Amino acid sequence: MVQGFSIRKIEPRDYLGVIAALNELTSVGTVDIEEFSRVIEYWKSCTVQDDIPVYNPYVVVDDATNDVAATGNLIIEQKLIHNCALCGHIEDIAVSAKFQGKKLGKFLIDYLTDTGLKAGCYKVILDCDEKNVKFYEKCGYSKAGVEMQIRE
Amino acid sequence: MVQGFSIRKIEPRDYLGVIAALNELTSVGTVDIEEFSRVIEYWKSCTVQDDIPVYNPYVVVDDATNDVAATGNLIIEQKLIHNCALCGHIEDIAVSAKFQGKKLGKFLIDYLTDTGLKAGCYKVILDCDEKNVKFYEKCGYSKAGVEMQIRE
Ligand SMILES: CC(C)(COP(=O)(O)OP(=O)(O)OC[C@H]1O[C@@H](n2cnc3c(N)ncnc32)[C@H](O)[C@@H]1OP(=O)(O)O)[C@@H](O)C(=O)NCCC(=O)NCCS
Ligand SMILES: CC(C)(COP(=O)(O)OP(=O)(O)OC[C@H]1O[C@@H](n2cnc3c(N)ncnc32)[C@H](O)[C@@H]1OP(=O)(O)O)[C@@H](O)C(=O)NCCC(=O)NCCS
Repeated sequence: MVQGFSIRKIEPRDYLGVIAALNELTSVGTVDIEEFSRVIEYWKSCTVQDDIPVYNPYVVVDDATNDVAATGNLIIEQKLIHNCALCGHIEDIAVSAKFQGKKLGKFLIDYLTDTGLKAGCYKVILDCDEKNVKFYEKCGYSKAGVEMQIRE
Repeated sequence: MVQGFSIRKIEPRDYLGVIAALNELTSVGTVDIEEFSRVIEYWKSCTVQDDIPVYNPYVVVDDATNDVAATGNLIIEQKLIHNCALCGHIEDIAVSAKFQGKKLGKFLIDYLTDTGLKAGCYKVILDCDEKNVKFYEKCGYSKAGVEMQIRE
């Protein structure tokens, strides 16, 4: 909890604030409000089993102004290993420039982690740059392995 | 391609072979054939948008005996960043003990990577132990970041 801020699922009205936050992380490109709303609808449609959504996209909102301060997604993966366990994946964490350094990143990670563990995930994982390791360690995470990539 | 082996989607009849392969990776526990089939059905049910399945679980099969030699999954994630890009996640790669060292791991990774890139993913990523980095480098991957985890 951070005084004066709430957390809730992303809605279409969060368009401008979510894009602004994500632009702190990487290039978002030219996503218009129709495309934004379509992605949110798609994420919602991926709730298939036992009411556990595949995608859990959240925003942290400034109670006073309704501004989006931060955003992030939790993907819940169904596995076969460990007795058909669930595994949480945190993706695309970003705090808007003017809201950084107010513990909102930690608030968001704590909430997504808790959501994953309460849904039954045996672990929650994420990939980050070396420069953000300390931030995630402050959220209770520890190094687990190496992220490898291939690009088109 | 590896002579004498094919690759196809996982089916319920692959139960014993897939469990045997996954036990090379980690503990699978006591997954019976009903639970196995239920997970496969769940994975199939997560095809929501444009016929792009969220889960793409594959087996490499010995043509002569129909034995499962290897298994792996490709998860296709819908993002907002990079113009609502797709991102591929390779999960739970395992080659059965007696089939290791025959290029089947590379065959499987090449196929899953290609499946992801053809579906439109701007990148395919995976997490691995430091000891497997060289294997993934031989599959064209390079280090991208740090995997962080928290466990229940
Ligand atoms: C990285 C980011 C998510 C952190 O969120 P934030 O709200 O600014 O950070 P918080 O205020 O919640 O920080 C919590 C703690 O972590 C520390 N911390 C935050 N970022 C850090 C970093 N990069 N290195 C070391 N410590 C860091 C804070 O000092 C604070 O420590 P304290 O509790 O001892 O005071 C945010 O700054 C951001 O979105 N940056 C740009 C995009 C990005 O890099 N995203 C991460 C992708 S992996
Ligand atoms: C790691 C694993 C997937 C590799 O599959 P494999 O079929 O045995 O490997 P391949 O025969 O396709 O190897 C392809 C190339 O990578 C090399 N290679 C394979 N594993 C390697 C390793 N751990 N370190 C260095 N090189 C390796 C091979 O020597 C081969 O090189 P070459 O083409 O120059 O001859 C497999 O051995 C396995 O399932 N191991 C146990 C479970 C596991 O660790 N899974 C990975 C989870 S991240």
